[in-house]
Amino acid sequence: MARLVMKFGGTSVSGIKEIENAAAKIAQEVKRGHEVAVVVSAMAGETNKLIEYCRAVSPLHDAREYDAVVASGENVTAGLVAMALQKRGIQSRSWQGWQVPVICNDAHGKARIEEIRAGEIEKRMKEKEVAVVAGFQGMTPRDRITTLGRGGSDTTAVALAAALRADRCDIYTDVEGVFTTDPHIVPQARKLGRISYEEMLEMASMGAKVLQTRSVEMAMKSRVPVQVLSSFVEETGSDFPGTLVTGEEDIMEKEIVNGITYSEDEAKVTLVKIPDIPGMAAKVFGPLAAANINVDMIVQNISQDGKSTDMTFTLAASDLPRAMEVLKSGSDLKGVEIRSQENVAKISAIGIGMRSHAGVAQTTFKALAEKGINIQIISASEIKISVIVAAEYTELAVRALHAAYGLEKE
Amino acid sequence: MARLVMKFGGTSVSGIKEIENAAAKIAQEVKRGHEVAVVVSAMAGETNKLIEYCRAVSPLHDAREYDAVVASGENVTAGLVAMALQKRGIQSRSWQGWQVPVICNDAHGKARIEEIRAGEIEKRMKEKEVAVVAGFQGMTPRDRITTLGRGGSDTTAVALAAALRADRCDIYTDVEGVFTTDPHIVPQARKLGRISYEEMLEMASMGAKVLQTRSVEMAMKSRVPVQVLSSFVEETGSDFPGTLVTGEEDIMEKEIVNGITYSEDEAKVTLVKIPDIPGMAAKVFGPLAAANINVDMIVQNISQDGKSTDMTFTLAASDLPRAMEVLKSGSDLKGVEIRSQENVAKISAIGIGMRSHAGVAQTTFKALAEKGINIQIISASEIKISVIVAAEYTELAVRALHAAYGLEKE
Repeated sequence: MARLVMKFGGTSVSGIKEIENAAAKIAQEVKRGHEVAVVVSAMAGETNKLIEYCRAVSPLHDAREYDAVVASGENVTAGLVAMALQKRGIQSRSWQGWQVPVICNDAHGKARIEEIRAGEIEKRMKEKEVAVVAGFQGMTPRDRITTLGRGGSDTTAVALAAALRADRCDIYTDVEGVFTTDPHIVPQARKLGRISYEEMLEMASMGAKVLQTRSVEMAMKSRVPVQVLSSFVEETGSDFPGTLVTGEEDIMEKEIVNGITYSEDEAKVTLVKIPDIPGMAAKVFGPLAAANINVDMIVQNISQDGKSTDMTFTLAASDLPRAMEVLKSGSDLKGVEIRSQENVAKISAIGIGMRSHAGVAQTTFKALAEKGINIQIISASEIKISVIVAAEYTELAVRALHAAYGLEKE
Repeated sequence: MARLVMKFGGTSVSGIKEIENAAAKIAQEVKRGHEVAVVVSAMAGETNKLIEYCRAVSPLHDAREYDAVVASGENVTAGLVAMALQKRGIQSRSWQGWQVPVICNDAHGKARIEEIRAGEIEKRMKEKEVAVVAGFQGMTPRDRITTLGRGGSDTTAVALAAALRADRCDIYTDVEGVFTTDPHIVPQARKLGRISYEEMLEMASMGAKVLQTRSVEMAMKSRVPVQVLSSFVEETGSDFPGTLVTGEEDIMEKEIVNGITYSEDEAKVTLVKIPDIPGMAAKVFGPLAAANINVDMIVQNISQDGKSTDMTFTLAASDLPRAMEVLKSGSDLKGVEIRSQENVAKISAIGIGMRSHAGVAQTTFKALAEKGINIQIISASEIKISVIVAAEYTELAVRALHAAYGLEKE
């Protein structure tokens, strides 16, 4: 007997038929003798509709009222799933964020969970009652409703699993798991059986869009194994039909590269010939940080003349106009030429096996060179190699790397 | 300066345009210097959609989960109206039932408000903050969400007005007020300027559908004046553009008859020749009450042979099949002939002036006789005369009585 948290995303509860399907999957786990708690998203499309309402009333709306409005979608699915379970003879009740309670800080619209007081849920779990918790929401210590930001139900699920000391958190979605890359670009992409938290973090934050980044961080910190799997695939009898995201220690075969990711909404800024003196980087990035602009890759070459150097960094394309304004209005960069470029993409190869293998980057460089793709920036970490290329080469580069690292299905 | 509770029904907040319109009306009262609290319904159609979901999942759903699902519609409008007020420079925040809190008993789906702890709202009201309260919902002492049944937001509004000791509760809806009868049947129907709680109770429970019956009972008990008015009519400068429902003592001209109401979903049951012995009525109505079937009018004639009598009563047509089952299965009525008839309607003339006038009923009898309408049952109370007629005569009877009591516009 295990203790499980099962989370169903928007497409998995998008209508009555899908809710019945989710209830059937939950019932199956209960009948196997597991203790189960459930976390649900709003029906697909509902949250967007509510956000539209808020924007229509006021583009500069109060984030507290926004939260009160958009959190309501999850309340509906939580109640409906509890009903569907009861119909199957399973004791169940719904829990809204304030009822659990899920205590959050007051960063409305993107709140962080500070504590889940799951004592009552755990007590009832032992009496075979299935808690159906509305995801994405919580309450502040002052009783206001908060939401956790896009994909926040994943974080609710992992946080609840941690609070309940669950054996696993199963994230049901509309894909079968985590793939070696985007199957729309590479049809031969392979579903991964296991992947480490660290790899998943890189995958999630780079556009794999399967799990919210924060939920992976939380899973890693609390050591909760997370399985990503499809709610629309019949069970095969395999223990883990999806992809298990878990600690490195639980992964026997450490692949050198496990996935190729890409991100197209990138922009690049180059500061040409800035003075090569200490404190220059702080002068550039301090004002950007103050303006809440996240910078991703940063590259600075050695100075050729001992006096000046070029510095390049990447950021989200949507932040580019604001970043240019901040840089140009700052007095410290007077006279410095600032070049910017949109339409660049970041392609990354990710794998924990890199730690113990030399020369992994060379495969990337060679594969891209063979296709005639120019690498604009290179950045490498312990488990990742990223390159910036012109956006028009995105698909070509992804396919080239996927093949070069031998990730196709057998 | 007055203290007002303003309630907006589903059609008055059915979309962004209507919500802006409601916010403009609220802003107007605030700018006049009034202290204002607001109660809102769900957008028109939303609650029905949520009820449909519940029925689709399970016809025999858990009333607690039903409440958790259907209460969510009001949360959306409360947040949106608060945003729309903030946009107009008015301090405002939304309050869900559990946040106020609105304490209810645990009769889920049709709960009663036991207490509204409005201390925090009152404190903020004095600091010029407008509370926007989600109507129709509350919470039980054990933190479960409850709803108050159809039209429950009216009750929330009146209960909040009582808790805040408000000077008036304005119910904004899609009609201009309470009319002497249904204007669809009698185009000359006149909007009433004032009406007593007692009259409104009779009107509401007999199908006038303007205010929830319970809200009128509560207003009468707590002596809160209630105004029914349209949110879609420009203000004329009149103090009370709608209909003011208030205590008899505040009504100068007590009309003999103030309104003609009708109800078409009625059925009639006659027990032919039942023994004329003490305790017979208890044997008939006890089992019906036990089956939760409400009986309306009851008529029993004197016994002609000293041994048996006929007894007739009316009830909602939807309850007729169950009532027949209960009566036929009861051992006490063995051998009694039970006749039932659907397609009957109840027509009533209502007015507090009846108390001090004799012969009012005669006008009803004469008017119906002139049109050749047969009266099947008569029942009269202090401020009401009701008759049962064949349903096909409904409109004709309403028009005849409306004219006979001189209720047309001048």
